[in-house]
Amino acid sequence: MAGGLKNRGKAKQDVDERRAAAEEFTGAKLNAISHCSFDPIVAEKNIENMIGCVQIPLGFVGPILINGGHAKGEFLVPMATTEGALLASVSRGCNVITSAGGADVVIVKDEMTRAPVFRTEGVKHCAEVACWVDDHFEEVKAAAETTTKHGKLLKVRAFASGKSLYLRFSYDTGDAMGMNMATIATEAASRLIEEMTGATLISVSGNMCTDKKPAAIDAIEGRGKVVLADVTIPHAMLVEKLHTTAEKAVETCFRKNLVGSAMALSYGFNAHMANMIAALYLATGQDPAQVVEGSMGMTTAEIVGDGMYLSVRIPCVEVGTVGGGTRLPCQGEALAMIDCVGLGKAKKLAEIVGAVVLAGELSTLAAQSAGELGKAHKALGR
Amino acid sequence: MAGGLKNRGKAKQDVDERRAAAEEFTGAKLNAISHCSFDPIVAEKNIENMIGCVQIPLGFVGPILINGGHAKGEFLVPMATTEGALLASVSRGCNVITSAGGADVVIVKDEMTRAPVFRTEGVKHCAEVACWVDDHFEEVKAAAETTTKHGKLLKVRAFASGKSLYLRFSYDTGDAMGMNMATIATEAASRLIEEMTGATLISVSGNMCTDKKPAAIDAIEGRGKVVLADVTIPHAMLVEKLHTTAEKAVETCFRKNLVGSAMALSYGFNAHMANMIAALYLATGQDPAQVVEGSMGMTTAEIVGDGMYLSVRIPCVEVGTVGGGTRLPCQGEALAMIDCVGLGKAKKLAEIVGAVVLAGELSTLAAQSAGELGKAHKALGR
Amino acid sequence: MAGGLKNRGKAKQDVDERRAAAEEFTGAKLNAISHCSFDPIVAEKNIENMIGCVQIPLGFVGPILINGGHAKGEFLVPMATTEGALLASVSRGCNVITSAGGADVVIVKDEMTRAPVFRTEGVKHCAEVACWVDDHFEEVKAAAETTTKHGKLLKVRAFASGKSLYLRFSYDTGDAMGMNMATIATEAASRLIEEMTGATLISVSGNMCTDKKPAAIDAIEGRGKVVLADVTIPHAMLVEKLHTTAEKAVETCFRKNLVGSAMALSYGFNAHMANMIAALYLATGQDPAQVVEGSMGMTTAEIVGDGMYLSVRIPCVEVGTVGGGTRLPCQGEALAMIDCVGLGKAKKLAEIVGAVVLAGELSTLAAQSAGELGKAHKALGR
Amino acid sequence: MAGGLKNRGKAKQDVDERRAAAEEFTGAKLNAISHCSFDPIVAEKNIENMIGCVQIPLGFVGPILINGGHAKGEFLVPMATTEGALLASVSRGCNVITSAGGADVVIVKDEMTRAPVFRTEGVKHCAEVACWVDDHFEEVKAAAETTTKHGKLLKVRAFASGKSLYLRFSYDTGDAMGMNMATIATEAASRLIEEMTGATLISVSGNMCTDKKPAAIDAIEGRGKVVLADVTIPHAMLVEKLHTTAEKAVETCFRKNLVGSAMALSYGFNAHMANMIAALYLATGQDPAQVVEGSMGMTTAEIVGDGMYLSVRIPCVEVGTVGGGTRLPCQGEALAMIDCVGLGKAKKLAEIVGAVVLAGELSTLAAQSAGELGKAHKALGR
Repeated sequence: MAGGLKNRGKAKQDVDERRAAAEEFTGAKLNAISHCSFDPIVAEKNIENMIGCVQIPLGFVGPILINGGHAKGEFLVPMATTEGALLASVSRGCNVITSAGGADVVIVKDEMTRAPVFRTEGVKHCAEVACWVDDHFEEVKAAAETTTKHGKLLKVRAFASGKSLYLRFSYDTGDAMGMNMATIATEAASRLIEEMTGATLISVSGNMCTDKKPAAIDAIEGRGKVVLADVTIPHAMLVEKLHTTAEKAVETCFRKNLVGSAMALSYGFNAHMANMIAALYLATGQDPAQVVEGSMGMTTAEIVGDGMYLSVRIPCVEVGTVGGGTRLPCQGEALAMIDCVGLGKAKKLAEIVGAVVLAGELSTLAAQSAGELGKAHKALGR
Repeated sequence: MAGGLKNRGKAKQDVDERRAAAEEFTGAKLNAISHCSFDPIVAEKNIENMIGCVQIPLGFVGPILINGGHAKGEFLVPMATTEGALLASVSRGCNVITSAGGADVVIVKDEMTRAPVFRTEGVKHCAEVACWVDDHFEEVKAAAETTTKHGKLLKVRAFASGKSLYLRFSYDTGDAMGMNMATIATEAASRLIEEMTGATLISVSGNMCTDKKPAAIDAIEGRGKVVLADVTIPHAMLVEKLHTTAEKAVETCFRKNLVGSAMALSYGFNAHMANMIAALYLATGQDPAQVVEGSMGMTTAEIVGDGMYLSVRIPCVEVGTVGGGTRLPCQGEALAMIDCVGLGKAKKLAEIVGAVVLAGELSTLAAQSAGELGKAHKALGR
Repeated sequence: MAGGLKNRGKAKQDVDERRAAAEEFTGAKLNAISHCSFDPIVAEKNIENMIGCVQIPLGFVGPILINGGHAKGEFLVPMATTEGALLASVSRGCNVITSAGGADVVIVKDEMTRAPVFRTEGVKHCAEVACWVDDHFEEVKAAAETTTKHGKLLKVRAFASGKSLYLRFSYDTGDAMGMNMATIATEAASRLIEEMTGATLISVSGNMCTDKKPAAIDAIEGRGKVVLADVTIPHAMLVEKLHTTAEKAVETCFRKNLVGSAMALSYGFNAHMANMIAALYLATGQDPAQVVEGSMGMTTAEIVGDGMYLSVRIPCVEVGTVGGGTRLPCQGEALAMIDCVGLGKAKKLAEIVGAVVLAGELSTLAAQSAGELGKAHKALGR
Repeated sequence: MAGGLKNRGKAKQDVDERRAAAEEFTGAKLNAISHCSFDPIVAEKNIENMIGCVQIPLGFVGPILINGGHAKGEFLVPMATTEGALLASVSRGCNVITSAGGADVVIVKDEMTRAPVFRTEGVKHCAEVACWVDDHFEEVKAAAETTTKHGKLLKVRAFASGKSLYLRFSYDTGDAMGMNMATIATEAASRLIEEMTGATLISVSGNMCTDKKPAAIDAIEGRGKVVLADVTIPHAMLVEKLHTTAEKAVETCFRKNLVGSAMALSYGFNAHMANMIAALYLATGQDPAQVVEGSMGMTTAEIVGDGMYLSVRIPCVEVGTVGGGTRLPCQGEALAMIDCVGLGKAKKLAEIVGAVVLAGELSTLAAQSAGELGKAHKALGR
């Protein structure tokens, strides 16, 4: 039955045969995995060697009131997790934010990047190639855009060291997350650059993109959507709903999110943004490896006249509402819960991510400042 | 039906009622989400507000031959993803590694950390509290270990700035990932420290832990298991199976993983470790937000006499084989595929992660050096 | 004589009186310090509370052949240090570079930055202020340039988090290092922005500048002049003059400057650039605290057909040939040695820095790869 | 006269001859440079190719009252700079600190490090070599200490990636800064390790030391002396002496030193520590290239009941009171001003650095919060 392991088919019977082969090879019974709520052919562009599905528990948080440029009103937001206490905590934050008048959210930048690396003759050649690209931007743009209907090349920036030249291409990718679109367009543009300058393309990704690694360039410049959100929680609400005070929560934010992260030389100045981002990405068919960049956000808290001001900055919200995992049935339904299916919805989705991250940060900061973290995990968690 | 949204029950009928309420609130139909291969009560410690499951396609890579301290032999490894081309690519890497004699893997450190922050009177008080903890380590350890059967406190390190004192507790957490165990134990120890020194616990997590944020302290010191893996691929195999050469692949690794990541000031010196880690974590019930730390690995390549030497260092493999998402049916079956269910298996699982990451890095480096990345995504991807 | 300590005069007799008071207060004899080769009034804008001078030994390295855009020909370069072995080592590198045909040097960017921080009403206000600045760039530029004859505002970039808005102003500052020019111009522009947008200036430097701290934004974007330099050393020359081989030196560069710095999560991927930069800055009247940014460079080595290719990238060469310490007599003479006095010379000076840093990196890499570092320090050092 | 340039002598006549040759080569007159207040032979271990001295204006700040473990009482502290306004500003800070009862200072760690890199056979060999070093620490220590009277090896930590093994040696180096002592001792120990384990020493410095580059490992772990200092300034004093308030200064510190540095992904969370450190190092004969590590400090401010609490953490105060530049006449006199000449004084010097850095941070924070930075530079600066 070793032939079964090598089956490359995408139909249900191929999946079944492969799973049977895997059971034989490993000795494991794969009953739960065999239950798919959809015909595997639906996932033909999402995976190879498919043998079934893994099921992640899905719940919701909210409703949360959002005052964004694209997301407006109350949302019940789907999140998938296996970490007990997470949804209860975030939902508590949503409730408080809604009571406080909702979260303001704004997207201040929206660009997907890909940065090939070229080998040149040396530093002077690097400078010449960079100049050529600047001087011929329209040609480079045309070459890139031959490969895509939706992608628009916005700019190319050059960085050089020795014989290595990095060209960071920034795109508007519409409602797609856009990584693959950017890769294919950049490869086409790179072939033109090779031809016209004598530089040699070494890799279409030279890691100044930077995809799925924590990188200062992304945290500073943003990648995908740069999302800012904030809210002011009145004093009484902090006491009644969150069992803390502005003073305590602001002190916790200061010593933990700022000083503590600085002492660890972390690129993330937040409490646990990655938790919310991971749960939202899993629910809505985003790429969970891009939680990495998403985790590089900053949460700040300040005492203001009427209570506590709380904000989040998430520099890399890399989401799409078309393509990738969004095509799958469960993920599509989850997107439908927040009216984020298909064209014209990616910015709305990013704003919802911003607001929910704010809710999660609020609740955890409150819990930690009230000394409740361990308790919550004991009661609800694993 | 707003009552349905507020239902806090964990039984199947609660889930069904809540989902119906969510459908009513959002107007979305949640059919695919409603299909669970298990009774929701199984997930009672994994989620709140559950309305169903999200299904992520699951496949396998391998077999891959692993020469580890705990993982020995050939493994067919489950991975869950929605990113087309990933499993095909990693599986190609597994095949080459197996042909080359397998991946050597070693775990060089294994500690889970939690770092509370205390407020002191100032720098001299910080120094005194740190000394007290050093001098009374056995008492601190005893206080921590009253809360856990499996956790062992290994050491406590102090870091201070102004009135903020961070104590980084390191634990052996057995076969659990151990974050919650460490949190609860540290909270108990912190209460003793408060009482004996006059310092005030501000938050049981002061972000020098550092959990779910990219942080230098974790990349340098490790968190969870520090896993190293390597393999040497003969020249002929590089050409035949990977369509590249040692020279090309090593140059790509140099310009991309080292120089490129350095230019971006990335904490990750690798091609795409987060992809493999995310897919493995989802399949086996690990915490996907910890892909963040996992992404801070390093991949190095060197030309050696007989071919290309390739290695990975993953400083933060935070995995468990008990507790958390490992209890869920699909995830448990996935763990069974690699004989990693329950006690005595966490190190084995970590070694498998190391070997599969090596395979994924190998395949992608080869593809990028051969100019095949865009092509692969066009053929297989979204 | 306590009155003497409070003397605020700048003339020689004030200096003498103050020194006498300092001697009385401290009990120390300050004879060597009293020897100034110039009238203290010359330094009236360089220091307060002056009591004399500290003398740093000054030597030279070279001649070194430089093929730059501004520095062309052979240069004998002044360096001041107290670290034995440094000048001998750098001079050896200069000699080899000259024999190999000289160092190519190119400046790829030249901007001085200052980034004030404003307090706004929140994230939406941040976005509005940033838009206002974009839309009124010419007015902002005019306001800034009222304060300076030489400074030109090139661009302003906005970064926001919560109520904090950072505006990074980039200037062409001519032949001045330009930090003070940028500060004063930015303060003027900031007052306009305050008035027109309702944002409140909190500090004219909000640390996104970033001055005198190692910062990713500077390493990536550059501050001052971004200088690249390279050279190829033939195999025979490596053996004869440097007692090493291309293979050994390239391996040392790989394991030390790239992998080692990456393992330390250093922002400097070099051997000891700070040594050369400090010695050049001291000799020529630059600000020694800006060695900090200068140290964030990258050195790469590659084996090429005819020998070893070596390059440096120094992202922050913050130098001037007018103003600051360049006005002092010794420093002016040192600048005269390399024909870098006054207007039109700052880029030339930066290129010389680039070439000398290359020489220093070359020599140390060779010494370390030949196992000679400890030996050199034993023979020549302290 | 080209022979003159190649003169390698150290006596005064050699210096004079060489300077004359330099004048001839460059066409510059080097009169000011020729004035040395000491016989050049004194500097024979400090420089090669000496042609004279560069004179840096020297002044003082203070008196400042210090409550350290080693520095106790009022100090008049020498600083050398060419940056106008610096000493006036720092002196203002000293005055306020003294009025407020002095600066508390404490040294919480004191270790100098050197980290050679070895080439091994691969990851398993790395693990074995690391184990060997652990198991044979006493032999390694004995080998290292054969080379030094004052140095004591405290520990060796191993970090590995692929074939590269880094061993970070930590020493007590007494009153020497200790870099050369550590280099020579580590080289001796490395030869033993090579012999016993089969690993090959590639470079005695593998950049995990990390010397003269900004590196997370140093900022987190410390290198040299980790110095903490703090003070509380009463409200009235902030208003009267510094023209600000606790609220304004604390807000400036928050938005600039914490949020601003975090946004720039800086490793320095301070206003301008490098300025004070550079001026102190130049005055007292320390290595100015080590200002780089010194700049990675953190300044925090908090409102407390009676005023503003201000603290600094400087993780890398790498100073000595014997050897290096401390032997030179001016530098020796400067050390005498603060009673820091020779044995038993290095910790005292480090504490003085801590207190003066605190003073400089205080004054600049106050000035920036009062909107006075540009004004001060206009009045006093260049």
